[in-house]
Amino acid sequence: MPARAHAAIITVGTELVTGQRLDTNGAEIAAALLASNLDVIEMLSVADDVDRLATHLARLTAECAVVVVTGGLGPTHDDITREAASRALKRPLVRDDEIVRSLSGIVARHKEPDAAEHILTQADVIDGATVIMPTTGTAPGQVVPTPGGVLVLLPGPPSEMRPMLTSFLGTAHRARPPVRLRSTGITESDAQIAAQRVLSDAPGVGLTVLAAPADVEVVLFDEGAGPFELERLGALIRAELGDVCYSADGSSLGETVLALARERHARLACAESCTGGKIAAALTDVPGASDVFEGGVVSYSNELKSGVLDVPAGLLAQFGAVSEQAALAMASGVAALTHAEFAVATTGIAGPGGGTADKPVGLVWFGLQTPSGTSAVRREFFGDRAGVRTRATMFALDLLRRALLEF
Amino acid sequence: MPARAHAAIITVGTELVTGQRLDTNGAEIAAALLASNLDVIEMLSVADDVDRLATHLARLTAECAVVVVTGGLGPTHDDITREAASRALKRPLVRDDEIVRSLSGIVARHKEPDAAEHILTQADVIDGATVIMPTTGTAPGQVVPTPGGVLVLLPGPPSEMRPMLTSFLGTAHRARPPVRLRSTGITESDAQIAAQRVLSDAPGVGLTVLAAPADVEVVLFDEGAGPFELERLGALIRAELGDVCYSADGSSLGETVLALARERHARLACAESCTGGKIAAALTDVPGASDVFEGGVVSYSNELKSGVLDVPAGLLAQFGAVSEQAALAMASGVAALTHAEFAVATTGIAGPGGGTADKPVGLVWFGLQTPSGTSAVRREFFGDRAGVRTRATMFALDLLRRALLEF
Repeated sequence: MPARAHAAIITVGTELVTGQRLDTNGAEIAAALLASNLDVIEMLSVADDVDRLATHLARLTAECAVVVVTGGLGPTHDDITREAASRALKRPLVRDDEIVRSLSGIVARHKEPDAAEHILTQADVIDGATVIMPTTGTAPGQVVPTPGGVLVLLPGPPSEMRPMLTSFLGTAHRARPPVRLRSTGITESDAQIAAQRVLSDAPGVGLTVLAAPADVEVVLFDEGAGPFELERLGALIRAELGDVCYSADGSSLGETVLALARERHARLACAESCTGGKIAAALTDVPGASDVFEGGVVSYSNELKSGVLDVPAGLLAQFGAVSEQAALAMASGVAALTHAEFAVATTGIAGPGGGTADKPVGLVWFGLQTPSGTSAVRREFFGDRAGVRTRATMFALDLLRRALLEF
Repeated sequence: MPARAHAAIITVGTELVTGQRLDTNGAEIAAALLASNLDVIEMLSVADDVDRLATHLARLTAECAVVVVTGGLGPTHDDITREAASRALKRPLVRDDEIVRSLSGIVARHKEPDAAEHILTQADVIDGATVIMPTTGTAPGQVVPTPGGVLVLLPGPPSEMRPMLTSFLGTAHRARPPVRLRSTGITESDAQIAAQRVLSDAPGVGLTVLAAPADVEVVLFDEGAGPFELERLGALIRAELGDVCYSADGSSLGETVLALARERHARLACAESCTGGKIAAALTDVPGASDVFEGGVVSYSNELKSGVLDVPAGLLAQFGAVSEQAALAMASGVAALTHAEFAVATTGIAGPGGGTADKPVGLVWFGLQTPSGTSAVRREFFGDRAGVRTRATMFALDLLRRALLEF
């Protein structure tokens, strides 16, 4: 297999190394560099410290063909990326008149009198760099020549970073995209072993297994495999995984459920208690969800369960809101309300409070209404409130997927 | 101000540097180390590459009192952290009989015959290390002495990592916690300048400003400030920020709204079209939300708007589902349905499709019902589908917050 050129990513910000903000740029840029056939050897987050950043820039520009930096290009006192890059590459900063002009409107919009001086530091360009003008935001990007390739400086806000990254990588060579098999209801170990068995004599294919709550992804990378080899091996691994595998192209479970419903001209609805809107949010995250998703009810109170979903008050009094009977009645109720053919309902105890010996934290009853009738499933999930809610949301979506597949 | 000891964090996994998985451990560990008065100088993500990881471990253990590594401790072929740490510190790996025994039950639960051999690699301990036994999962953690302090190896899954990190840091000194002022409806620059004006002659206080869509956080760190100094300066900055500032202790907007409602014995409800469950999910993310949140309706279809929320079909035909009239009727409808005193409704065009010249992508109408009556607000948000939905969710929660404050 051909060796790939090395790349590195640095995200700059004291907020990152103090845990005040989660970095999402690193993962996004890494995926884009991989798709451009670059081998990312490290992703680094550093504080707003000019000396340290300059040291890392000198180290990584010496080793990598492409170094991408995000953050520290804004107008505030802790935006130190321009200065650090200038020092590391020993190239001076030059104020760019065209950028100064482009910033005049933005200067006028700010209320604070000191803002102009801060904002104009964004017009300082490293000598020899190509400027990438912003389509949103105020900070321009810069592509700076290095001894081994280029240093790319991009702003931190993802909405500003993204179009500049696309523009920079636009002409780069694209490798074959990875095959991404996603499953729910299997352990990471079992998925890994199933994949390794298939790949035991398959050179030129890289393997990574990723796990999130109730979501395991097997990723096959092109590392010199022949044409259609990734697809062939992906199909074999999918067969090993069996029906826990819900998508072969990286689609989310929400996307999978909506696509199945669209194919079958079926409409969907949900009634949520413990998941509190997360099933609806997962479905409506997907563009075009309104084609098949009618909507749902977040019935946190018993009054809403009775008044809107027609769950009999006597049933709630006798069996409790977290019960097989309530889950069944919620699913039928929301199906009747929305005229959806497929409806799922959740009622459970997400915690941390509210658990009893009979009904512990993590217990969730699911109701399902399909054209074939109603059914209920009981599950106990482990984890904290967020974990229980996420696992219950995935399980409910998977019930819809399996019901749609049989339809 | 006293200098703090240095720390570094390494997260291990090819899935991280290829952008297949977002690292959340780094930020969580960084926050915990900061709270233990350690200065995190870098956060690094590297691939499953034994040589590179060993090189970084040698570099960082020489410079830092504490180096925390997560990931690469599991049972699979790419779990290379034990081997890399052994090489970097020149200490052999020794198989631990007690861990072998603790893993016997787990070995039995796996379906694949090869799993046992993989799983038992987790019993390999670096000579001289203290083992942290897992409370969930199978991989033990290790605390290894280094020339300058300790190297802490923790498993990658957050639910396994977290209790071990807490256990390791349990006895560490805690610094004064940071003051975290959160605002919505102000730019990052304006917030920064307001904070800097107050802090211009305040030594011993560190400042970071973080921005997420429709959410700006001003964080003040203790860097040697006197007693109550952080709190005093936080109050001054809060006064500068004005009513855009919704919390002074880092609480989310959902937490803030629920706390205000609880104080006022008011109940809440929502009717969501374009936000599709995200308002309900933001509120029900908070433990105890059921005290004041009655629930809501995700009325994606017009039938649900008419049939459940009593929005007249004629109104929808005349003005459209995305209109002032529809927003007002949805808010009143869900308030009537749930008997909540405060209700908010959203109807808009999240995109990418569905926009027109009159009603562009990003347009959202908000309806609000309070004990004083009903009102509607029109906003146009920029950004992609996810951005519009997040900004609209924050704006809707802020409408509830402001209405509750006046009540």
